[in-house]
Formats: sequence, C-alpha cells, structure tokens
Amino acid sequence: ETKEAQGSTNPMGPDGPQSRNSVVICQTVGRSIFTSSVSSAAGRVGFLLQKDEGKEASCPVLFIQLNELFSTPDGLQWKQTARWIKFEEKVEDGGERWSKPHITTLSLHSLFELRTCIKKGTVLLDLDAHSLKQIVGRWIMWEGHLPGLKKLTSVLLRTPQHHTTKSQLRIVAELGALKNQFQKKIPAEAEVSNILVGEVDFLEKPFIAFIRLQEAVGLGALTEVAFPSRFLFILLGPRAKVKAYHEIGRAVATVLTDELFQRVACQAQDREDLIAGIDEFLDELTVLPPGKWDPTIRIPPPKCLPSPHKRYQRGKTQQLSGALLLKSRAGHTHGHQPVSEELQRTGRLFGGLVKDIRRKVPWYWSDFYEALNIQCFSATLYIYLATVTNAITFGGMLGDATDNMQGVLESFLGTAVAGAVFCLFAGQPLTILSSTGPVLVFERLLFSFSKDYSLDYLEFRLWIGLWVAFFGLILVATEASYLVQYFTRFTEEGFCALISFIFIYDAVKKMLSLADNFPVNWDYKINDVTLYGCICNSSGTGRSRLPPVGRVPASPFAWAAAANWSLLTRTECLRVGGHLVGNSCNYMPDITFMAFILFLGTFLCSMTLKSFKTSRYFPTALRKLVSDFSIILAILIFCGIDAILGLETPKLIVPSEFKPTNSQRGWVVFPFGVNPWWVCLVSTVPAVLVIILIFMDQQITAVILNRKEYRLQKGAGFHLDLFCVSLLMILTSVTGLPWYVSATVISLAHMDSLKKESTTSAPGDQPKFLGIREQRLTGLVVFILTGVSVFLAPVLKYIPMPVLYGVFLYMGVAALNSIQLMDRIQLLLMPAKHQPDFMYLRHVPLRRVHLFTLIQVLCLAALWILKSTVAAIIFPVMLLALVGIRKAMECIFSQQDLSWLDDIMPEKDRKEEEEKLRSSQEKEESDSEDVSRAGKSCLPQMSLH
Amino acid sequence: ETKEAQGSTNPMGPDGPQSRNSVVICQTVGRSIFTSSVSSAAGRVGFLLQKDEGKEASCPVLFIQLNELFSTPDGLQWKQTARWIKFEEKVEDGGERWSKPHITTLSLHSLFELRTCIKKGTVLLDLDAHSLKQIVGRWIMWEGHLPGLKKLTSVLLRTPQHHTTKSQLRIVAELGALKNQFQKKIPAEAEVSNILVGEVDFLEKPFIAFIRLQEAVGLGALTEVAFPSRFLFILLGPRAKVKAYHEIGRAVATVLTDELFQRVACQAQDREDLIAGIDEFLDELTVLPPGKWDPTIRIPPPKCLPSPHKRYQRGKTQQLSGALLLKSRAGHTHGHQPVSEELQRTGRLFGGLVKDIRRKVPWYWSDFYEALNIQCFSATLYIYLATVTNAITFGGMLGDATDNMQGVLESFLGTAVAGAVFCLFAGQPLTILSSTGPVLVFERLLFSFSKDYSLDYLEFRLWIGLWVAFFGLILVATEASYLVQYFTRFTEEGFCALISFIFIYDAVKKMLSLADNFPVNWDYKINDVTLYGCICNSSGTGRSRLPPVGRVPASPFAWAAAANWSLLTRTECLRVGGHLVGNSCNYMPDITFMAFILFLGTFLCSMTLKSFKTSRYFPTALRKLVSDFSIILAILIFCGIDAILGLETPKLIVPSEFKPTNSQRGWVVFPFGVNPWWVCLVSTVPAVLVIILIFMDQQITAVILNRKEYRLQKGAGFHLDLFCVSLLMILTSVTGLPWYVSATVISLAHMDSLKKESTTSAPGDQPKFLGIREQRLTGLVVFILTGVSVFLAPVLKYIPMPVLYGVFLYMGVAALNSIQLMDRIQLLLMPAKHQPDFMYLRHVPLRRVHLFTLIQVLCLAALWILKSTVAAIIFPVMLLALVGIRKAMECIFSQQDLSWLDDIMPEKDRKEEEEKLRSSQEKEESDSEDVSRAGKSCLPQMSLH
Repeated sequence: ETKEAQGSTNPMGPDGPQSRNSVVICQTVGRSIFTSSVSSAAGRVGFLLQKDEGKEASCPVLFIQLNELFSTPDGLQWKQTARWIKFEEKVEDGGERWSKPHITTLSLHSLFELRTCIKKGTVLLDLDAHSLKQIVGRWIMWEGHLPGLKKLTSVLLRTPQHHTTKSQLRIVAELGALKNQFQKKIPAEAEVSNILVGEVDFLEKPFIAFIRLQEAVGLGALTEVAFPSRFLFILLGPRAKVKAYHEIGRAVATVLTDELFQRVACQAQDREDLIAGIDEFLDELTVLPPGKWDPTIRIPPPKCLPSPHKRYQRGKTQQLSGALLLKSRAGHTHGHQPVSEELQRTGRLFGGLVKDIRRKVPWYWSDFYEALNIQCFSATLYIYLATVTNAITFGGMLGDATDNMQGVLESFLGTAVAGAVFCLFAGQPLTILSSTGPVLVFERLLFSFSKDYSLDYLEFRLWIGLWVAFFGLILVATEASYLVQYFTRFTEEGFCALISFIFIYDAVKKMLSLADNFPVNWDYKINDVTLYGCICNSSGTGRSRLPPVGRVPASPFAWAAAANWSLLTRTECLRVGGHLVGNSCNYMPDITFMAFILFLGTFLCSMTLKSFKTSRYFPTALRKLVSDFSIILAILIFCGIDAILGLETPKLIVPSEFKPTNSQRGWVVFPFGVNPWWVCLVSTVPAVLVIILIFMDQQITAVILNRKEYRLQKGAGFHLDLFCVSLLMILTSVTGLPWYVSATVISLAHMDSLKKESTTSAPGDQPKFLGIREQRLTGLVVFILTGVSVFLAPVLKYIPMPVLYGVFLYMGVAALNSIQLMDRIQLLLMPAKHQPDFMYLRHVPLRRVHLFTLIQVLCLAALWILKSTVAAIIFPVMLLALVGIRKAMECIFSQQDLSWLDDIMPEKDRKEEEEKLRSSQEKEESDSEDVSRAGKSCLPQMSLH
Repeated sequence: ETKEAQGSTNPMGPDGPQSRNSVVICQTVGRSIFTSSVSSAAGRVGFLLQKDEGKEASCPVLFIQLNELFSTPDGLQWKQTARWIKFEEKVEDGGERWSKPHITTLSLHSLFELRTCIKKGTVLLDLDAHSLKQIVGRWIMWEGHLPGLKKLTSVLLRTPQHHTTKSQLRIVAELGALKNQFQKKIPAEAEVSNILVGEVDFLEKPFIAFIRLQEAVGLGALTEVAFPSRFLFILLGPRAKVKAYHEIGRAVATVLTDELFQRVACQAQDREDLIAGIDEFLDELTVLPPGKWDPTIRIPPPKCLPSPHKRYQRGKTQQLSGALLLKSRAGHTHGHQPVSEELQRTGRLFGGLVKDIRRKVPWYWSDFYEALNIQCFSATLYIYLATVTNAITFGGMLGDATDNMQGVLESFLGTAVAGAVFCLFAGQPLTILSSTGPVLVFERLLFSFSKDYSLDYLEFRLWIGLWVAFFGLILVATEASYLVQYFTRFTEEGFCALISFIFIYDAVKKMLSLADNFPVNWDYKINDVTLYGCICNSSGTGRSRLPPVGRVPASPFAWAAAANWSLLTRTECLRVGGHLVGNSCNYMPDITFMAFILFLGTFLCSMTLKSFKTSRYFPTALRKLVSDFSIILAILIFCGIDAILGLETPKLIVPSEFKPTNSQRGWVVFPFGVNPWWVCLVSTVPAVLVIILIFMDQQITAVILNRKEYRLQKGAGFHLDLFCVSLLMILTSVTGLPWYVSATVISLAHMDSLKKESTTSAPGDQPKFLGIREQRLTGLVVFILTGVSVFLAPVLKYIPMPVLYGVFLYMGVAALNSIQLMDRIQLLLMPAKHQPDFMYLRHVPLRRVHLFTLIQVLCLAALWILKSTVAAIIFPVMLLALVGIRKAMECIFSQQDLSWLDDIMPEKDRKEEEEKLRSSQEKEESDSEDVSRAGKSCLPQMSLH
C-alpha cells in the first residue's frame, strides 16, 4: 500500500522531470527570460493543484512542532524547541518562555540542505501505521539492517519533554487554563506535523525520513496539543556543524506552513512531487541580502498578507493560455468597484424604497435576537453616554441659538423619540440619529431671520419642516439616493472635517465663554487682600425696603438694618433690590482654572485611555475593556476629581420638570395663526436649502456606514433611511423638537463597538474582522435610556460642563484623525524622506498629492468662512458644490492619480476598467494595495472613539 | 589585455571548479551535513579574499545606478529607476520622487536568473576603454556580427534621462543645493556601477555583458553623480515576462552592494570567480517564506548591522584549521571586557594620580582649541540653564534644610567656583559638578544634629570637610579608585534610580508645599461673595498706634483713624502691628491652580519637545535644534504664559546683593571658637560616612561617563578627579559653601550635547557615532556664566518657581527612563507575549529576570526608607552595601544570567572567559547582541535630556 519513492522514477510523460539529476538552477529558471516553456517543477505542481481543485478545504490547518534531541545528565532527551501554525514561536533559552510569533527567517543554505534531505532520504507516503512505534518500526524495516538502527529506534521512542512541562508551577497552570487557551487558537480539525531532529554518536551518516500517514493518528506525548498527526519528518545523524540539524528542522517546518506546499504534500505521489513543491517554494522566496540585514532580528508578522488564493491562481494558470488568463484577470478586476445592488435604479416610483423594505424584512426578527451578547451591553452603555453628551451639548447650543425655543429638554425628548423610531424602522439600524453641526448652523440663521422680520419662529419652521419632508418623499420616490455614488472620499472627507471642526471649535468656544462667566482677577495682589471686598448695597432708587448704608446711621435701628444688609448673600441682595458694590464682586476665583484643568484633563485622559489598547501592559481583554470604556472612565475620573475638590464649577443643568424650556411655547406648533398666510409658500425656498443639507448629511453618513470594508450582511437601506428621516421631520416640526439626521461620528463609534473578530487565529496572526453585530436593539435601548434620562437629573447634575466639553473636543479630534485628509495635511510638513510609506505616495507624484490636499483645504476654508458669514444660508448648496468641484478636478488630475487619492466617479467606470485592464499587469503585483487604498489598514478603521 | 571569460576554462588546480556545469545545489551545500569538505565556491572566494588580504580598503564605496529602457512617444529612452549605496532607493511611479532607503527584497528567482546571465553572458574583465562609446564598441566587436547589434549600439548610446532632470523646478534646485546634498553623502573616492537593462523589439535573444574596466572612467550623462565608473552590467533582450529585466537589474545591484562580492568582483580573474561570488552570496541569504510576508512591504534598514568584518573572517577561516579558528575566536572574546588601562594598579603611592596627570597633560591645549565649534555654543547654553536650575533648586532646598546657612547665593557661588576649578584641572572635564541628592540628605541630618546638641553647624562641618578631604587624599594615594570595577550596572542603576526619585519627589513635594502657601478656598460659594472679606484690625494688645475698630468710634477723629485702618494693605497692616481678620485672609485665589498648570505644562512641554526629534515633521536639523533646546524652550514658553497672564505666582528669588544669605555667618569659617575642642576629633566618624558617600557618588558618575560606548579618546582620570574633589572639599568647607561632586544627569546631558556624528552616511544608514567633543571650555564657560548669574537677578526674577519644579520633574523622569531597571519593572506589568524583544529575555528565564528586578526594587525601597528615617546617617554605608548585595546575588543567579542582566564582577573575569569560550559557538551567531547588551541600541544612549 505504502508508496515508497526511493529509487522509483515514475515519469509523468512530457511534463515529467527531464532528468533524475536535474537541479534547482535548471528547474527554477523555468519561467526565465531564457526559455519560454513552463518548468517541470511548475508543471508538476500545477498538475497536482489541478487534481486538488474541487477539494480546496481538504488540507486542514497544520500545527507543526519541532522536537530536538539534547544530551542531558540523564542521557538523551527530546525537547520541543519551536512550533508553527502560521508563524514561528521559539522556545527561548532557559526553556520557560515562548518567543513572540515571528516570521521564520531561514538561510537559503538550510533550504538547500532540506532539498537534499528529501532527495537522499527515505520518503514514505501514505504509510499505514497507528502509533509512533509502528511508524518507526516500519521505517527502520525499510532502511534495512544497518548499524545503529536499533539504538535509533530506542532514541526515537523516548518520551519527549515538552516546553511547558518543565516547572512544577507550569504543570498546574497547564491542567487549568493555559494549555487550553493555546489549544483554543487552533481550529478543531487541525492536524499536527512532527519534526524530530538530533545528533547522536552512534550513527555515521544521517538518517532521514519524510513520512505521510495514510490516516492522521494521535501520537500522544509526542505532540504538545492533542491533535492527530499526519506528517512526520525525522532527521538523525552524526555530530555536524552547529545548529545544522536545527536549521534543517526549521526549514521543513517553514515549508510545511506554506499553503501551497501543504497541498502538494497532501497530493504528492512520489519524491519528485515533493521536490517540485520545494522548488516552487524556493522560486517564490523573498530574499534579504546578507550584510544588509541582521538575521537575528525577529520580524513581526505584517498586518496584511498576500492572499494564498492569488498564489493558487498562479499555480493553476501555469496551464492556462494567455488569453484565458487575461480574461480571468479582467473578471477579477471588474468585480472590484461595482454599483452596489442597493443603489441600482428600478425606474419605478418608490421602487428603491420597496426594494429596501423587501431586503430588510427577512432580517427583522434576527435584528433583535442577534443582540443577545455581552458586547451589545457594553456598546449600549458607551453609545448612551455619547448620545446623552451630544443631546446635552447640542441642546445647550440650540437653546443659545434659539432663545430656548429648543432647549436641553427638547433635545433629550427629540433624540429619544426620533432615534427610537428610526432604530425600529430604518434600513440601517446601526445609524444613530443626532442633531448635527450643519443643522444647528441653519437653525441659528433661521431664528435670527425670524426675529429680524418679526415672524413666529416655530410656525415658520413648521412649514419649512413640512416642505422638507415633502421634498424628501419626492427624493425617495424618484430614487434620488442613487446619486450618493457621486459622494466620493473627497466629499465625505470635506463634510467629516467640517463637522469635526465644528465640534472642536464649539468645545473651545464654550470653554472661553465659561472663562468669561467666571472671570479671574488677573491683577489680584496678595498684598492688597485687605482692600478687596464686595458688599450688598441698597440701590438707592427707593425700591429697597431697607435703609441705605454708607452714611452714618441715625439710630440704633438703622444700624441693625445696615448690619442686616451686609449679612445678605448675593442672591438675597439682588432679590431685595440691592446691588453689589466692590472690586471683587465680578471675579470668581479658581473656577476658570479648575474648568480648564477638567477640560484638558478629560481630553488627554480619553486620548490616553483610548490608546491604551495598543500598549503592552496588562492582558488584551483588560486593555480592550479600558479602551472601549475610555470616555466613560475619563468622565468618571474627572467628575470624581471635581467632586472631591468641591469647587463650585458649572454643572450640567438637566431639566427636572417635564415642560418646554421656553414657557412661551407648547408641545404642539400650529400651522397658522401668527405669521401671514403666504409664509407657508415662501417656506419652500429655505426648505430647498434644508433638504439639500439633510440629504447630504444623511446620505454621506449612510455611505460611510455601508462601506464594503465593514462587511455588512443585511444590506443597506438608503431609500428607507431617507424615508424615515423625512417622516420624522414632520413629527419634529409639529412638536417643535430639533431636526435629526444620521450622525457620522457616533454611528461609527456604534459600529466600532459592535465589531466581531475571530478568536481562533494563529499566534501572531491578526484577528480576522468578521463583521458587525447588525441589530436594532442596542440603538433602541440607547434611545429609551436617553428618554428616561430626563428623570436622571439628580445624578447627571454632578457632571461639570468642562468635562463634557473635553469629551466633545476628544470626539472632534478623533474624527479628524480618522480621515485621510489629515494624513495628507501632515505630509505638507514632512520632508519627503520622512514621509510614511502610504500606497498613494508610491504611485502619485508628491506635487499632485499636495495639490489635491490644497484644493480640499481651500474648499474646507471656503465652507467654514461661508458658515460664519451672512451668506451662511446658501451653505447647503455649497456643500453640494463639493461634488461639482470633485468632478471638475478630473480635468486637473489623471484618472490614475484620482483612483489612488479618491474613489472614481461612477460614469467613468467603464473607461476606468479598461485602463485598469491595461495596467493590470503592473497592479497585479500587490494584492494588499487595494486594501490599503480602501482603508488605512487591513481591518476597517472605525476608531473614531 | 582584456581577460575574457567566455569559453575559457582556466582551471585553478585542486581548488578549481569541479565541473563546468556544476550547479548551485552542488556548490552551496559544500558545508553541508552530507559532506565535510569545503565547497569549490567557498574555496574560490576564500582564495580571492586571501589575495586581497593586505589591501582591505582597495575596494571603494560603490554607487550603483539602475537605468532602464522605456518606450515613450519620442522613441526609446533610458531612465534611472533606482540607486543603491548601501540600501535601495527607488524612483516612485510618476518619476518625481525617491522612495525611502530600504532593504532590497528580491525574489530568489531573479538571483538565479542573474546567475544564469553571468554564466551565459559575456564577461569582460579589465577592459581598457575610456568612454561609453569605446566600451560599447569593444563589447559589440566581441559579440561578433549578429543581427540587431548595430541598433543595439545606438540604443545604448542614447543620453539617459535622470530622475532628477524631469521637472523644470527640479533643474533649478539641482543646480543649487539639492544635487550636491546627495553627492555629499557619497565619500569622495566612491565609484559608480552602471546597470543598464531593457527590452527591445529587434533582438531575438538577450545580450548580456558584465564589464569591469581597467581604470574607472567618468561616463558623463550616464550617471547621476559625477564619479568614475568601473563596473557595468548591460542586459538587453526581447520582450519578456513583466519586470523580468527590472528584477535582474535589481539583483545585480544588490549583489554589487555586498562588501564581500565587491571584493570578489574587484579580484575576479574569470567568470567562474564571479559565479563563485554569487554562490557565496546566495549561501548567506536570509529568506522569508512566501505567503507569510508581503513582498511589497519596504523594510527599513535596521539600526544595527552585522559587521562585514565577521563575514570576511568567515570567508577567510574557511581555510584555517579548527584549532586556529578557536584561538582567534578566543582572542576576540577576550578583548571584550578587559580591566581598563586607567584602573590598573601601579602599586606605588599616588601612582594612579601621576599616571592620570601624565595621560591628560598632552591633551591639555587641545582641550581648549577643540571647543571652537558651534555645537559647543549650544551645549554651553543648554548646560548653563540646567546648572543654574540645579543651583537654584538645590540652593533653595539647602537653605530650607540649614536655616539659610547655605542659601541660593552660596549655591551659585560654590557651583561657579568649584565647577570652574574642576573643569580646569580634572581628569574628565566633561563632568559637571553639582550639589547632589545624597549630599543634601546628609547636610539636613548634620544640621539637625548640630542643633540638637547645640554645636555650631558650620564649624562642625568644616572639620568633617577637612577629614573627608584627608580621607579622600588617602584613597587617591592608595589608588582606591581601582574598586570602581565593582560598581556594576546593578549598583549604578540603584544609585541613579535613587537620585531620580529624589528629583521627582522633591519637585512634587515643593509643588504641594506651594499649594499650602497659597491655599485655595475650596468652599467658596459664588452666592456668598458678599460675605467674604479680610480687614485690617488693630491687634488690641496696645502695641498699635491706631485706635481699635469694631466698636462704634467715639469721636470723628477715631472715625478717620478707622477709615485709615481699612485702607492699609496687608504688609502695612502687619507692620503697624494690626492683624488680619476675615474669612478670605488665608486664601489666595487662582495661584495654586496656575502653579500646577505651569508645573505640568513645563513638564509635558519638555517631554514633547524632546521627543520632537523622532517625529516626522520638518527637516532633521530643525528638529534636532528644537529637541536640544527643549528645556529652554519649555521654560521660555511657560515664563511667557505666566508673564502674559500676570498672576502673582511665586517667582525665583535671586540674591541681588553679594553677602551671605544668613547674616549670622561670614565668608570664612574658623576651625575653633564655638565648639568644644574634641569636636575636631569626633568629626572623623561622620567624615567616614561622608567620604563613602562622596566616593560612591563621584565614582559611579565617573564610571558611567567613561563607558566604552562613548568612545572617549583622551582617557579617564578617576584618581585625578577624586583628588580635585577632595581639594575642593577643603575650599568649600572653609568658605561654608555647599559640597560638590559629579552630577550624573547633567554630566550625561553635557556629553549628549557634544556628540559627534558622521555626516557622510549612505541614505538609510544610521549616522555613525564618532565620539564626544572632549574639551574643557564648555564646562568652564558654563560655570563662569553661573558665577555671573548672581548679577542676573533682574532677568531671572521673571521665572516662576513652578516652571523650575516642572524642569526638575522632567529631569528625574528622563533619568529614570534611561535605566534598564525601568524596562524590567515595566515587564512586570506585561503579559509575556507583549514583552519587547529584549536580548536578555531571549536568554534569561522570565522568572529570573523578575527576581532580579524585585531584588533591585527591594534594595531601592530599603534605601529610600533609610533615607527618610532616623537611621539616615548610615545611608552611605548602605549604598556601599549594594555592592555586597550584588556580590551575594552570584549565589542565586548563574554567571550566564548575570552576564545578560548585569556586568560581571572583575575577579570572575577569567572563569567567565572560559565559560564564554565554551559557549562562544552559540554566541557567535549574533554580533549585535553584545551591543544591545551594552546599551539600549547601537548608538550609546545618553538621552537623559
């Protein structure tokens, strides 16, 4: 049964090896500039892989273990010295520590040695044996009666000493969790490959065996983990050059970690197949020149790896014709940037909406039961705090802007109602609705316009809201969301940067206004302490019920009254109509400094705790926990500091009664009554502006959230989302609550906190991003909690405002840092030689990159200025103009440059495909480029929070 | 003349190639486990290198340029696509940008292709030609009359387009500085190697030539830089697989960057020599397995490279016998940790001192004229500020401790005099003298002891000082500095950590006492502003000249007087004997908060600016400038902020008059008069303690400063330094100034600011550390300036104390971060898999590392507690005990472990050598390990500031 390859020729016809003594140099230059034919090694491998075509999954994950023979006082002993799943882990000197997983670096020499080993040694394929004893027995039988073989058997059958069984403490830990923890990393269907190498005195020449068992067999104590073994490599020989055997052992292990070679090894019929596999492996090696690299450096695994699929493809296409190859490539390239199914037009009225509903309905119940995970609990808490912070701050600012016609209570209420409704019915329930910067800007303008022309603000706003809802429904009916394809990275980033700046600007502005409210006496002199004071004085207008002081009182009664005046507190004094006189009345000691300490402290603390995830301290789980809850922790820490110090810093004012903030309004706005009748028609003009704003704001966020890289399974719902937002516009306009659209920053944070990652990944391998927990429950609970928070006043009132501003600053800065624009702005300050190795820098001249950045910055500056001046009302139109500017940039930049710096506009798709096809050969070289083009790294970056 | 290798066999006797068709696999496994003989390739290379023995410098640095043929609308054009000196720089897509220097990663395939090229192509060695035309002409003549060769000539003679000549802007820049700047990086005697590869339509097979010119010839426009060319590699052929030619071109270039191959190429007699060189190169390659590494990743050059010398050695020792080899290795190892010449005992009285003086005298004048460099100016400024800061703070603390018997003025004066004298006469003039923490601790104890026993502090101290000086001279006479060899890293780090902690502790303590001096009214209520106040009140004890208030005054006169009272300021009030009454008298608004903002701001700002050096922004020179002046900048920034805000923060008080701070003392202390006569004898007891302290403090700093890795040329002067310190003890004791010893932190900062680094280094290569500007002038000027600073009061009085405390905190933290102990403490908090790849972790079990750390931390804790309790007086002895503890640790730890975690104690030298010898084979593998054992990286780390 056992196929034994020693001495067998087994020619494969015209594809077979040209000569028994053919050597690397001849085989590996098969695809050389000197010959055009496919080499024999490549041919063999291609043939093997083709056979294997249907059963790609037939090769299980291999756990590879290297055991070496050491001479100890107790005689020869086997010890595990390294292991591989994907990367190498070495047992460090002292034998008590695994090295960090690293890429195996070999000397080419050891690979050549390995090749010779396979060539000269025994190769036993599909050996039928069920224990180590049987295996060794059959091998030794095969070798014949040579001296030393008996001893060899006894050496091989010694129980090996595993790395982990050394110290007593370890054994205990082993029995518990540690071992299982490592075993958990290996998929259940994995197999072990055992490599046994060592030097012995009694042999005169090396004995080598490469064994493939017919059936994988558990070899007990031989392996560290309890998985069956299929491959064994044994090399025992006389004393040799230091580490020669060790290096060959590492070489076998490395070759066996290769996906391509694994399949060759599984399929191999004879020795030549294995050698062909090694030759293919050799041919694909990356080499580092000697003297320019220190081989003792351990290279950490890279974040992105070339997909093995590409390499299979290459192996297979050896046999395909050129034309076929080109076609398959074209197909591959074409699949790259298709118009997503969600955005294809049906051409029917509300066709998109119907399709969205049809797509989402089947998932509806899973949207609830899939939320039953502890991760969702943490996400809910986190997003709740962010939402409440947002509601408070935007509520405060809206209150400022509209004279409390919309205040904090309205903000809480509106957020809760609109958010919960959206989470229940929207197409993309991961979206978090919120007041947003652009809408705030518009409300401010609207209020001052109403005041200037003596219009009733809420009534005017109601009509605008109704028109906006109407336009929104028209956009839904006409499937206008199709247009979001024109929102490229350029537009998204412009918008995102603008919002981030609004966050940062508002946080700082609020802090400065706080410093105005609590003025510091900068000229305070310690020496003049006796001259400072503030006393309550009757205003002298006759309104006061107490006699005036300042003159010598005429009677004892008046004296007493004067004494009473001085005992009044500030509020009492003002209430009784007195006024405050003195050079310390207007100053508030310490509050401003304390506020700035809290503000900067919260910001820096959030930043630090967030980045704690990537630090080296403490176990990963703890770090992740701290990082996920960084903002909450920062808030708690600085609330605690504030409470302990006990200064009267300005605290969050949460409405404790359920009534509109401004007493002049009710809970329902009536459409007619105060304003002239024609206002309902005139409202169309601002409504057009608002719908542009809402559409942009809503859809840009939707595009960002539904990016391919997040691997959402349940599909998007652009039309349905806009439909929901439009209907909510009616509700919020009628009740006089703020308007809501999707908030990019919080929504991304929401998705980030719901990321699923693989747990079983080889040591050193990056955890695989598996997708997002797509469900409606977290959002729903967040908004219910927000609603309930109206009654949380007793707790929330301990939060100092500066802490919240600090959080806002953090959110703005984090959002800014996540966009590529900031990377490119930073490039402006870096000398070329220090710039990081961004993919686009390899392909686009620096001048063009800078030009692109400058145009973007100019657009942003224009938007910002516009937002701050009287022309602010046409601000939404200008946002739309970004799309036009981006289009116009196609005249300045080549499609090639834009494809690296930005996405490609849709109608160019075909043309671009052709161009891509033409340059596909060049592009082909790197798989990872596409990935790094899409995001900053392999894993989607959502680290806004 | 020209040796042409094509077709020639040229056998080399027994060492010659075994067969013309011998192939890689046979040759490279020459030192295989299967055969014991030296391979033919290794033999050939060894033979060539041996010939080359005497003239190691005969191979100039090679600048390698790769030109490729591109088809443009104007026809075929040559363009430069990459260049190498040591690492690869690629012209990026778009042709306007050089990539960052990176390690060339090749596919093994392309190296095999190259080997075939050399095998099949034309090899012209020592061609006698003086222009490109001649070269091409002779080559084409050699090839014979084949089709296409005429066209080939014309293609080859086209003027190439250099990367840099593309844009108009570039040309201008080129003419100016840019080009020269790159050329400056190449040593003047460099030579160019030109590699020309390309595809043409008119050829049917590849034409390949490897040409070595007899004499290096300038080839004009062909090369980017104006250096003569010696090697040319030309490869032109029909269309081939994408990038095949490009990859072969890169392979040639990479092989040519190899120091070993360069020498082979210079010496090669025929084709086989070159092939042997390539085979040797192949054999030493480091390979990365396919699929585990993304070949598009550009690997930045590592900080440390294995020395090429080792590789030569290996090449040579191929031919040496094993015994010889072992001997040479032993010698190499032995040279590693010798007793330095400065510390060898002469056995004569003052022998060491005499030797020190003899060693230093010849350098004396150079110690002044070598200071004429702009770097010294910057160093002077920097160290001046550090010294003044130190003088102020230690002065202040000494003043606290000794009731101003030694105050800030004494500190300035003493620092200036002692420092200047030391810089003029010491053995190691880079040392900066300063008050140090341990001495401060001792002075505090001494003062309170004197007070308790009613002794005159200064007189007592004089006697101690005299005895200390006497003991110091005895130590000098007996060459006791020999003992510093027992100060291993363990002792040094314990001492350094202790001093750092004192810095940090004092900074924080001072800040807290500041908060006590400027109390914040934590219970301040905005509402109660009218109830706060502080009024001046006559104390009512009869001392006052003004009538009491509080009762109704009896007469108009009394009223006026009462009004006057209320107009008095705090100082006036207290002067006239009034006292302050009121609930705001004891509070100082804002100052404490402002102080903490300044304190933390200065600290964080120093940290940030210091680390700015390693950021990517702005040119290196600017970053270095900012980083070097980080502390000064931080001080200026926060002094500016303080000045702008104008709050009355506590400022630095600099004496404006030249007289002792305490009026009870004069400038000279007399030995007798106040204390009983026997005090002069009793003083010997504390003097023994002080001399231990001084000896430890002085010599540990000296050991650190004179470490091998700083490559000091002028030698150390342990005996001379101690001699100077002892004499200065007499001076400072008599004048009642503080005692001074070497200060580690500032001295290291001094050396760091005087570091010389090479400017001509290949792109990507780390600048080489060349040594320190060893001179006396910077120190001297620093101390003269310190002396002059006594008169700088008008400027210095603007510096707020919190800023200075911030600097102190920074100095303490920076010093702590620089010691290995902190790394190891951090390890305690890290899970094993996240721990950095420290060399000692690879060799010492983690448990042992932790044990070592814990012992060290316990020692530190013991020292700290001792320092703070009544037993503090024996603190110096405990410091000495560190040496004993270290010695005792040899019972717990193996020599092997200690050699990784600490230095080895001297008398074990021999034993350890033997052990090293035994394990030398294992150690041999990494050259860099020794380096990383010595410091944290290749360059000596002195980044304390």
